[in-house]
Amino acid sequence: MLMNQMMVDKAEALIPELKTCEVEPEAVVDIVADEAAFQSWRVDRAEDQAWKERVLGKGDSLILDFGDHLVGYISLKVKPVGSPPDAPLKIKLTIGEMPCEIAEPFESYDGWLSSSWLQEETIFVDVLPAEIKLPRRYTFRYVKVDVLDTSKKYNVSFENVSCTAVTSGDVSGVASLPDSLPAELAEMDRIAIKTLQDCMQTVFEDGPKRDRRLWIGDLRLQAQANYLTFDKHDLVKRCLYLFAGMRLEDGAVGACVFEKPHAHADDTRLYDYALFFVACLYDYYEASKDRETLEELWPIAMKQLEIGAQRLDERGIVRDDETWWSFIDWHPELNKQAPSQGVFIYCLKRGLELARLVGQPDREKDIEELIKRVADAAVAHLWDEEAGFFVSGVDRQVSWASQIWLVLAEVLPVEENTALLSRLLEERPAIGMTTPYMYHHLIEALFSVGDSEKAVKQMQAYWGEMMRDGADTFWELYNPEDKKQSPYGSNLINSYCHAWSCTPTYFIRKYLV
Amino acid sequence: MLMNQMMVDKAEALIPELKTCEVEPEAVVDIVADEAAFQSWRVDRAEDQAWKERVLGKGDSLILDFGDHLVGYISLKVKPVGSPPDAPLKIKLTIGEMPCEIAEPFESYDGWLSSSWLQEETIFVDVLPAEIKLPRRYTFRYVKVDVLDTSKKYNVSFENVSCTAVTSGDVSGVASLPDSLPAELAEMDRIAIKTLQDCMQTVFEDGPKRDRRLWIGDLRLQAQANYLTFDKHDLVKRCLYLFAGMRLEDGAVGACVFEKPHAHADDTRLYDYALFFVACLYDYYEASKDRETLEELWPIAMKQLEIGAQRLDERGIVRDDETWWSFIDWHPELNKQAPSQGVFIYCLKRGLELARLVGQPDREKDIEELIKRVADAAVAHLWDEEAGFFVSGVDRQVSWASQIWLVLAEVLPVEENTALLSRLLEERPAIGMTTPYMYHHLIEALFSVGDSEKAVKQMQAYWGEMMRDGADTFWELYNPEDKKQSPYGSNLINSYCHAWSCTPTYFIRKYLV
Repeated sequence: MLMNQMMVDKAEALIPELKTCEVEPEAVVDIVADEAAFQSWRVDRAEDQAWKERVLGKGDSLILDFGDHLVGYISLKVKPVGSPPDAPLKIKLTIGEMPCEIAEPFESYDGWLSSSWLQEETIFVDVLPAEIKLPRRYTFRYVKVDVLDTSKKYNVSFENVSCTAVTSGDVSGVASLPDSLPAELAEMDRIAIKTLQDCMQTVFEDGPKRDRRLWIGDLRLQAQANYLTFDKHDLVKRCLYLFAGMRLEDGAVGACVFEKPHAHADDTRLYDYALFFVACLYDYYEASKDRETLEELWPIAMKQLEIGAQRLDERGIVRDDETWWSFIDWHPELNKQAPSQGVFIYCLKRGLELARLVGQPDREKDIEELIKRVADAAVAHLWDEEAGFFVSGVDRQVSWASQIWLVLAEVLPVEENTALLSRLLEERPAIGMTTPYMYHHLIEALFSVGDSEKAVKQMQAYWGEMMRDGADTFWELYNPEDKKQSPYGSNLINSYCHAWSCTPTYFIRKYLV
Repeated sequence: MLMNQMMVDKAEALIPELKTCEVEPEAVVDIVADEAAFQSWRVDRAEDQAWKERVLGKGDSLILDFGDHLVGYISLKVKPVGSPPDAPLKIKLTIGEMPCEIAEPFESYDGWLSSSWLQEETIFVDVLPAEIKLPRRYTFRYVKVDVLDTSKKYNVSFENVSCTAVTSGDVSGVASLPDSLPAELAEMDRIAIKTLQDCMQTVFEDGPKRDRRLWIGDLRLQAQANYLTFDKHDLVKRCLYLFAGMRLEDGAVGACVFEKPHAHADDTRLYDYALFFVACLYDYYEASKDRETLEELWPIAMKQLEIGAQRLDERGIVRDDETWWSFIDWHPELNKQAPSQGVFIYCLKRGLELARLVGQPDREKDIEELIKRVADAAVAHLWDEEAGFFVSGVDRQVSWASQIWLVLAEVLPVEENTALLSRLLEERPAIGMTTPYMYHHLIEALFSVGDSEKAVKQMQAYWGEMMRDGADTFWELYNPEDKKQSPYGSNLINSYCHAWSCTPTYFIRKYLV
């Protein structure tokens, strides 16, 4: 690990104070199986809403709906009913962003991510009445309380269950949208901002439920949405310094960093994510005009481009790999070569601009030549004239990701890019998009060629469908064709408030108002 | 509830400071099924004792043996091994006084006491390395750590697991026994003192694992043992004032009191337990000569005798009942009438002495007359000349408890009592003794008629057998004929360090040295 303590200290000095807000449940609900509902679970308001008066004994339970997505700390006030309690109270809390987490037993989970992400607590209360302040942070809308045991002599009532919600994103500073904007887009903007807000903690987390880390792929999109909404430059700056201050041995920026118990980087290396440091710095300077940071971080950005270039083969094409070397998207069969070539060119172009800004003409020239080399190589070796698509890997795979990233890299003239995207939407190659992250790049590509109409249609078909499925915040994963899909083996572990899904507000505010 | 706040305040002012002591595990062990072992579980020292170096992943576990019975607070130091932890750690602790608690799944428990007494915790650790200080107090010798989940990227090692043991009993002040005492009795004395010590917290608890309350039946025996060992008068005084300060509506002393969240009495009323307030006060004065307390509490003691007398029928016999009105012993078929008559006379006699001490000749005369009436009634109506035993209830039940309590009440001349006890031990009526509490009274009865030899034999057969079965502290329940017996439906929930079992030290120090 390459540590630059001065940079880490700079990052740590920028830890924002969190705003807190007390939230109480809005309703007591039942969650019932319903094939017609999203993920087959329907939420019904319970007939008897006087949950604070309910007396619960062994085996009884209560599902509280807080009415919106929250990130925060849960407190419970519980009192005994009956004789003096002659045994501890044993309760279980099941805490979920979505109805599936409350309704499907966690014991059934058999996915490949750790089951420790499933939010539950078994609590023994030795002294009653009690006010229990749970020390962990949860991300949720629903809380189920199961009374596992009391004793034959007493039952309990919950005087209150509440949440101290936390965020570093102050929504009061976000500009309102013109009334002329269609209601659906205004609501999409609101949900996107809530998504971003709940991910804004002491860093830009990827998902406040899971995995709560600062990933550079998510950061790039969050920062772009942030500049047009919360406009909190210091939080982006903190994140940039965390990545810059703790790098992998060869100087590459790691894919993600942890904040606690002290700042440290993960050992995950991803080709595209390291390069995005350049794009993040470029966007940050564009928004902030913070020249000091630009100058301090430029050498690290330049280093990423150099490391990116080391992966080129003699043709000027990014070498392919069988391992998890580049992220691009969660699609299990996606070949990452061509889209990574696109990411490289995309970041080189932003690096070129940074070199100009810092006044390094030698670097400028080097980068310019490199861009020409890799862009030409992309056209020469990855473009399949007959198919009318870019291909990737030895099997010449045609994927959405390859077209999208090579459009964003602007290796073809704009009219050819326009035609390529039209062809993509018409022919719909089998290797599709899995995550909102990939959908973001499709929409960004459509806007980049000026096709707002198609871009908005895609937003409405994807984020709009999430809204119709009841999203309070936008999700990590969503497949309108298979709504229980998860790359992790279970929809219980999906994050339902995820950074890379927050970009509708960016599109709306950048291109539509 | 009759509250006397002045008395409660006096009690609260006497809360002792607890002594603490750091204890570390003595060994890592395996617990294996073995029909020949106590409760069918054998404890084997594991081959590899370097448990702090073990790397544990999902599904791995560790059983730590602390080498002795402890009451206290557990801390764990855990560190990650491998990549930076990218998911919380989920562990489960199973904490037991006995091997059965570690080996038999708590899910199998189906007894009538609350399952919330079973000591376990499921803990999520969000940040590693971590030092986890569990907030609850546990009573245990064994701790099993199950690693329920880590992630694919890391495992864990436990750098330490330790216990801050607590007690208000300072063993350094206990007098040593003469070397002439047989080794078995010396060891029995040591274990009895450890039992008492672990029950001595901010009150004399009945069992530090379960149910942790101050019960007056237990208090009486603990106090008697305490006067000959720790000799901590203030803790007895605190307990007397708790009972005196919070009584049932008619002025009867309740069966037990709770300390938290503030001192309050339970709503349980037991005929024998209320009367024991008189015996406790008598013993306390005998040991402490604290006249101020005697004078302040005497009216409350006298009140218990009056309430006890209200239950007499026209013959002068305590009225029988079908409900749980008098404790005496856990035996499910035991009729409580005759033993309760014995308890009443026993307490009247101590009350008489107290009336003399405080100088109330009118009270003295009343009590003297009452003693004569109930003692005569016992002989007239409960003594079965033909059987040579006292009988109890309409079915004229012959039980051990009836004989023992009417011997302790001394209604027959001493030689007849001696003969009665011999007959009892010979004929062994079917309605036997269930608890060490009842065994205590048998042995006290034997000593009371001067039969030390038989008394010691009983101690060796009962407490000695517990020792051979591996007792670190003496148990709440023990049947040498059925070692898995529990009145609660499962041996998992039995208390294995119980106040009323601590009296071998009292017998040894009062009668044998």
